[in-house]
Amino acid sequence: MSKLMVFAGNANPELARKVAESLDSRLGNATVGQFSDGEIAVEINENVRGKDVFVLQSTCAPTNDNLLELILMVDALRRASATRITAVVPYFGYARQDRRVRSARVPISAKIVADMMVKAGVDRVMTMDLHADQIQGFFDVPVDNVYGSPILLDDIERQNYDDLVVVSPDVGGVVRARAIAKQLNVDLAIIDKRRPQANQAQVMHIIGDIQDRTCVVVDDMIDTAGTLCKAGEALKEHGAKRVVAYATHPILSGPAVDNITNSVLDEVVVTDTIPLSDEARRSGRIRQLSVSGLIAEAIRRVSNEESVSAMFH
Amino acid sequence: MSKLMVFAGNANPELARKVAESLDSRLGNATVGQFSDGEIAVEINENVRGKDVFVLQSTCAPTNDNLLELILMVDALRRASATRITAVVPYFGYARQDRRVRSARVPISAKIVADMMVKAGVDRVMTMDLHADQIQGFFDVPVDNVYGSPILLDDIERQNYDDLVVVSPDVGGVVRARAIAKQLNVDLAIIDKRRPQANQAQVMHIIGDIQDRTCVVVDDMIDTAGTLCKAGEALKEHGAKRVVAYATHPILSGPAVDNITNSVLDEVVVTDTIPLSDEARRSGRIRQLSVSGLIAEAIRRVSNEESVSAMFH
Ligand SMILES: Nc1ncnc2c1ncn2[C@@H]1O[C@H](COP(=O)(O)O)[C@@H](O)[C@H]1O
Ligand SMILES: Nc1ncnc2c1ncn2[C@@H]1O[C@H](COP(=O)(O)O)[C@@H](O)[C@H]1O
Repeated sequence: MSKLMVFAGNANPELARKVAESLDSRLGNATVGQFSDGEIAVEINENVRGKDVFVLQSTCAPTNDNLLELILMVDALRRASATRITAVVPYFGYARQDRRVRSARVPISAKIVADMMVKAGVDRVMTMDLHADQIQGFFDVPVDNVYGSPILLDDIERQNYDDLVVVSPDVGGVVRARAIAKQLNVDLAIIDKRRPQANQAQVMHIIGDIQDRTCVVVDDMIDTAGTLCKAGEALKEHGAKRVVAYATHPILSGPAVDNITNSVLDEVVVTDTIPLSDEARRSGRIRQLSVSGLIAEAIRRVSNEESVSAMFH
Repeated sequence: MSKLMVFAGNANPELARKVAESLDSRLGNATVGQFSDGEIAVEINENVRGKDVFVLQSTCAPTNDNLLELILMVDALRRASATRITAVVPYFGYARQDRRVRSARVPISAKIVADMMVKAGVDRVMTMDLHADQIQGFFDVPVDNVYGSPILLDDIERQNYDDLVVVSPDVGGVVRARAIAKQLNVDLAIIDKRRPQANQAQVMHIIGDIQDRTCVVVDDMIDTAGTLCKAGEALKEHGAKRVVAYATHPILSGPAVDNITNSVLDEVVVTDTIPLSDEARRSGRIRQLSVSGLIAEAIRRVSNEESVSAMFH
């Protein structure tokens, strides 16, 4: 393939810098800002004709602004004759609005986002730990869903946790947690939340043995951290010695950092698909690992027409 | 056509209320808010099957949020089996990014916005005083561009201005200003801004007779009001007795209200396609007319399969 170039929007400048560094490359020169009225203003400041262009932009908060930055950068690059454009979206926003639960009159926003990207001229998409694999079907172009698990697994192994058990915080996350447990060759436990009756408080049933053990709660994202912190409490009440949470995407919206600071969680480990707020950094309870090496390697492979899935075997 | 229903996003609740009132209708019941992380959350709370639905939403600031509200409402309505969906976008954001000036590597954002609306399921678009008529060609569905001029003209006539001359603030606005001058049967003047040399200040040449007259400066939008306020100064310096500005869309971003408050402009008259900020309301220099009656009439006509252009003959 032709020479690769990496451009980035404003969502995650730190990750963009690291990815470029890992690729022994520099970030493409583009102006991505706002006009006085808040409309996104994009200008690509160097020639991209014939180039294999990667646009790195998580669609984290402010989601709509970051999404439009991505879309308008892609449109500008396509009109400037880039040969191929890959949207690299480590955190894919709107992924939780991917279906009409109970036929509610709601949008399938993840489909709209996919349509916008393709219509703007994206030839491929690369993302990480996509909330639901089905979202790949919303695209008519190839989607590489890179797993963040090697980074998380590596850290878990390095920590040498005592008498480890991997815990899924809800039944929806069992497949994800099981994959981690299997690779670590440790036990799996599951929290099964039930509301006995409509107006009663949720009861946390714990399936599996956690007594006096280190619980590693695994999820794809931490948003308000409400559920996660309650899970931590339930685990400790049921005899867990230590509770550490691992998740790829630190959304950490609203009361998240307060929730974590006031929780029984011993540590929260996340990646840099989304930048941490100053508040989150200062909390001292949240540790961040970098996925820049993984993303750089996946970009290198796509550009060389090599298999990305082979990275995970 | 089937029974009409009007839904509105959060961009302009006051205008939405007035349009519904003018139609002797009520606004459709929808929840349009945000999740904790700022993603737009939409739910349509009543049956829309078989309905002729109009979604009223200016894509004014915060442009990207208002745009996504509109797009996701349209997606939800389409998936809920509305028969026909018309996006009513009195102020159409991103309209100034409608071409690549000097082949710059920039997006044509207005085209992306058009694509998003159509892809989400819009069957028709209604807008007002679109910045460039060419944007209609970005859509493959019918676009009704309703003129705000009847509202502005009516007010100008009512004010009974003394020895009136209509002024275009730049050569780009001559066609618009000329249409107003013709309908009022008064003279036209034009401000021709030139920069004698690269690093010199702009010089305002005034073409036409404005001595001791009331100048009505006409434009489609007022953004930072910088150009407009300088135009006012130039007109007064060249002998204008009074300078009043009329524009459809009060974007009024950044220093706009300060600029207007500190200017020589005697009055600024705008419409309610975009809501005024509290600061703008308090300034006492900005008067707002309502286009709700016009928009309601255009909606009624579209729903009855009557001509919209006939409103302006
Ligand atoms: N940004 C968001 N924040 C919180 N909840 C969301 C968000 N987007 C979608 N949802 C809701 O999350 C649920 C889907 O989450 P999940 O079951 O984890 O796939 C649906 O009920 C959605 O309405
Ligand atoms: N939101 C905006 N605010 C200010 N200028 C803009 C905006 N969008 C586009 N432009 C610029 O406005 C110019 C086009 O305006 P016009 O000549 O009035 O159609 C182009 O140079 C654009 O780059």
